Amino acid sequence: MPLPFDKPAPWSAMIRQLVDVATGRKAADLVVKGARWVNVHSGEVVPDTDIAVSGGRFAYCGPDASHCIGKETQVIEAKGRHIVPGLCDAHMHVESGMVTVTEFCRAVIPHGTTSMFIDPHEIANVLGLPGVRLMHDEAIAMPTNVYVQMPSCVPSAPGLEHAGAELGSEEIAEAMAWPNIIGLGEVMDFPGVAANSNRMVGAVSATMEAGKTVGGHFASPVLDEMFHGYVAGGPADDHEGTRKEDAIARVRQGMKAMLRLGSAWYDVEAQIKAVTEDGIDPRNFILCTDDCHSGTLVNDGHMDRVVRHAIDCGLDPVIAIQMATLNTAEHFGLERELGSVTPGRSADFLLVSDLNKLTIDSVWSRGVKLAEDGAMAVNLPSYAYPASAKGTVNMAGDLAAQDFAISAPDNSATVTARVIGVVENQAPTKALEQILPVRDGLVEGEDGTCQIALVERHHATGKVVNAFVSGFGYDTPCAMASTVAHDSHHMIVVGTSREDMARAANRLREVGGGVTLFADGEEKAMVEMPIAGLMSDEPSSIVAAKAEKLVEAMAACGCNLNNAYMQHSLLALVVIPELRISDVGLVDVRTFEKVDLFL
Amino acid sequence: MPLPFDKPAPWSAMIRQLVDVATGRKAADLVVKGARWVNVHSGEVVPDTDIAVSGGRFAYCGPDASHCIGKETQVIEAKGRHIVPGLCDAHMHVESGMVTVTEFCRAVIPHGTTSMFIDPHEIANVLGLPGVRLMHDEAIAMPTNVYVQMPSCVPSAPGLEHAGAELGSEEIAEAMAWPNIIGLGEVMDFPGVAANSNRMVGAVSATMEAGKTVGGHFASPVLDEMFHGYVAGGPADDHEGTRKEDAIARVRQGMKAMLRLGSAWYDVEAQIKAVTEDGIDPRNFILCTDDCHSGTLVNDGHMDRVVRHAIDCGLDPVIAIQMATLNTAEHFGLERELGSVTPGRSADFLLVSDLNKLTIDSVWSRGVKLAEDGAMAVNLPSYAYPASAKGTVNMAGDLAAQDFAISAPDNSATVTARVIGVVENQAPTKALEQILPVRDGLVEGEDGTCQIALVERHHATGKVVNAFVSGFGYDTPCAMASTVAHDSHHMIVVGTSREDMARAANRLREVGGGVTLFADGEEKAMVEMPIAGLMSDEPSSIVAAKAEKLVEAMAACGCNLNNAYMQHSLLALVVIPELRISDVGLVDVRTFEKVDLFL
Repeated sequence: MPLPFDKPAPWSAMIRQLVDVATGRKAADLVVKGARWVNVHSGEVVPDTDIAVSGGRFAYCGPDASHCIGKETQVIEAKGRHIVPGLCDAHMHVESGMVTVTEFCRAVIPHGTTSMFIDPHEIANVLGLPGVRLMHDEAIAMPTNVYVQMPSCVPSAPGLEHAGAELGSEEIAEAMAWPNIIGLGEVMDFPGVAANSNRMVGAVSATMEAGKTVGGHFASPVLDEMFHGYVAGGPADDHEGTRKEDAIARVRQGMKAMLRLGSAWYDVEAQIKAVTEDGIDPRNFILCTDDCHSGTLVNDGHMDRVVRHAIDCGLDPVIAIQMATLNTAEHFGLERELGSVTPGRSADFLLVSDLNKLTIDSVWSRGVKLAEDGAMAVNLPSYAYPASAKGTVNMAGDLAAQDFAISAPDNSATVTARVIGVVENQAPTKALEQILPVRDGLVEGEDGTCQIALVERHHATGKVVNAFVSGFGYDTPCAMASTVAHDSHHMIVVGTSREDMARAANRLREVGGGVTLFADGEEKAMVEMPIAGLMSDEPSSIVAAKAEKLVEAMAACGCNLNNAYMQHSLLALVVIPELRISDVGLVDVRTFEKVDLFL
Repeated sequence: MPLPFDKPAPWSAMIRQLVDVATGRKAADLVVKGARWVNVHSGEVVPDTDIAVSGGRFAYCGPDASHCIGKETQVIEAKGRHIVPGLCDAHMHVESGMVTVTEFCRAVIPHGTTSMFIDPHEIANVLGLPGVRLMHDEAIAMPTNVYVQMPSCVPSAPGLEHAGAELGSEEIAEAMAWPNIIGLGEVMDFPGVAANSNRMVGAVSATMEAGKTVGGHFASPVLDEMFHGYVAGGPADDHEGTRKEDAIARVRQGMKAMLRLGSAWYDVEAQIKAVTEDGIDPRNFILCTDDCHSGTLVNDGHMDRVVRHAIDCGLDPVIAIQMATLNTAEHFGLERELGSVTPGRSADFLLVSDLNKLTIDSVWSRGVKLAEDGAMAVNLPSYAYPASAKGTVNMAGDLAAQDFAISAPDNSATVTARVIGVVENQAPTKALEQILPVRDGLVEGEDGTCQIALVERHHATGKVVNAFVSGFGYDTPCAMASTVAHDSHHMIVVGTSREDMARAANRLREVGGGVTLFADGEEKAMVEMPIAGLMSDEPSSIVAAKAEKLVEAMAACGCNLNNAYMQHSLLALVVIPELRISDVGLVDVRTFEKVDLFL
């Protein structure tokens, strides 16, 4: 019998064993008796079904597996519970949970997720191809299926920022030969695709030539020629739709509509009406999370939450489950490998006591019970990241308050400055203009506008880009710093006190990255993220508690935004309008041009 | 612009061109304006749709392709006609039409078939791997998509027959690297799969390792442990179901239910009720023909006939079309290559004036109009088979009447002989026993029983196996000989006159194979099949006319069976019960044992 966490041998190498078990010549490892079979192929619930498992794969699914039972066979009485395929998350970023792949698995397996398609593009921006390889190799060590989508757009906006690394089509072609690479991660540079940029054509064609799936990301509501050009450019799915018509448009073009419910994405309810109201064939719809914070994983769930939500939106439970199992497997060319409870497939399944509520009693992968009653039933060894993945906050030296000083031009008494306007509950910012006072030759924030700085942290250039931001509501001397700063992941510092800005930045340099908040000279909260400055190596429950403390500390400083930390970490995302900060300066994303701080 | 018959470059190599056309930077080769878009992804008919084609692939599908039109663009006004993806035949044998791949294409393209998945297992039994390669290479030369399934069971029953060649897992693994091999042809030896025979495990695992599709053929109505063993053994589809419960059982096991309407197979009507009555998800149903005679192709149609029939059985037309397009493409891993009218896919489509009747006005493949109003619009060059594919009737010499003489044992006046009992409209035969008279020391047929002989024709062994058959009804001195004799394709001669038996056999030796009927010493009909003794090199209309003349000649000799020629050609098929003839003797297929002629 294989070790519990080993990936099963390929079906091709297990034919004799599976046939022997199915025909009763050999005993199964595990038999589940008397289940209601949620059959995602036929779209039925088949009562009174027995399931036999051998070597981590289903060998027999039918009315009576008595002939598969031997002395050593573990027999489970389902007593009429539903047997459901393990859930798949078709597109997600582990880094959003601020934890490692291992800790992410530990958090989500009890929620029924047994297959993940992860796009490690955050670590790629910090560590390049070796960073992708680290998460790829950690993924292989997991007790369930974690496939990797090769990041396609590193950096996200060439010319407007310098990330820690760059990935070109050569790196992409190289990665396509790695064992756990399942395709290309979301092709975010949709203008580049529609314009036939060398970078995007190279990435997509290398993936197609490898026979793998090209992930999409068309983040515009305008379905004009650029959209049609994007489709012709090859992406096979898209999770950026938000409206019913977005889902319909994608499906009609032969793409899969990936409907997203993350911590901050609520894109299922509107789009699922394409199925429930318009009768569009559900086979081309796939559910995913994209980004989940640790708090969501700990408190609300993962793919179980998405499937429940889809059912709550009026979808038939079996169809909702198809969208998180078979449809996903088919999309990635894995229909014979996972995604259904049928012979030959990896024995990933859930025992569910209430199908409509998706009440998960136990979670099995590769024939091994991994979780029961919402808790892990096995111990996952923690995965040790090498030193090369740590100590990535590479600053030229400690900073001082004067590094954040913004000198006024021409001895003026006031200046008109461009200000990044944070908008509650929205990723886009506003490009504001504000008259700001000058004291002792330095421009100061006022009326809710405070300072923001981007601290270069990949190549120790010593560069600090200073600017202004409004909307956080800080009303005491404080500063928050984060090395999570999509997508280039320099360090973003936002503060009302230049002294605290320096303290926060230096503290992150000291611990190797994370998020910290200083007020009145004291550290009020800290989430250490030593791995690439993006991920903790602690369990998600601890990370969630620390993140909760951070939110409380922000509120204590006057911040009244719903998702203040997310807003903070997105301020350098120079692909979403309107005004952003990068290591090259302020960027107007409406025109994709660098602009001056002062008008 | 590529030559009309060239296969388009891969999508990966055409990204720039397709994107340029979709965005209007480059003119399309072809634009169809104002069509009703039968969208097999969404399951809708979308009105007022324009389609742009470039380099043989769809570049744009949407509300207005005006921006894709340039001076050289061919513009077609659809005037509200439906645009339907070209139809796919998911499993078929070209040899059943008695014509070459080229002539088969010439016959079926006007009926809307633009993708065929052919299993050349007849020629494989005669010529082995080189024979498969010949048809494979002819397939590549076609103006539309002809993929090849590598024959899996050559010979069909090792030990019970000697075919002209044998294919083992080494040959199968070799063929998997050929450009047009799409998977493994129907795995007919289902007892071998369930018994883990080395041959079947080797064939299936070689195909799985190549990442290709394993075709199934479980020809038993008993869905017991052997069925479950077969499923665990890897076949991914099955076209041998005949009842609704057969289709449901296969789909539940994660196989595709292939529903077959051939010249003599009527398996759609009963099984489609799984969808129309039981609400089984139609995505796992696929339509195919398996075997079509030239007469059917000429008079009734091909996949258009199957789709029409499915609609007549109560299926929604769009769902019926999905079963002959998208579902097939997905099954073979070709969803991004063909099977829908969407960007990137091969521009294979039909313009249809009546969707419910599937009235096909024109047929396009790779952006070229191949047929219009039921006739080819382009000239297909005939494909020259090499000398090695001809002259395959390799007998030791001419035969004489005495070669067909059956001596009675022991000077007896009568003998009790085993007789192959042909049953009207059924493939299985009966194992009969009959007391037959002896004249001049030779056993003679009477009361509707006549002689049958299997003449070894692959290796010039001179072997003639003589036996008796009943059911044909011949009542004059005559004999019919055929080198189509599934699956080993020796020569079968059935006759009431030993002289005519010899004449018919020698005539086939002379012409290199085919079917001929002699009566009273004269040739009454002949279908020459010089290619492997299985296929004519003439058009299917001529072959159909000759075959019709053959049927008339059989009737003139007293034969009153519906499908007399098919019955004749199946009498050596030693995998279907009950009694068959092979080059090793009489075979009782109930026990898979050789039996004596006399009891």
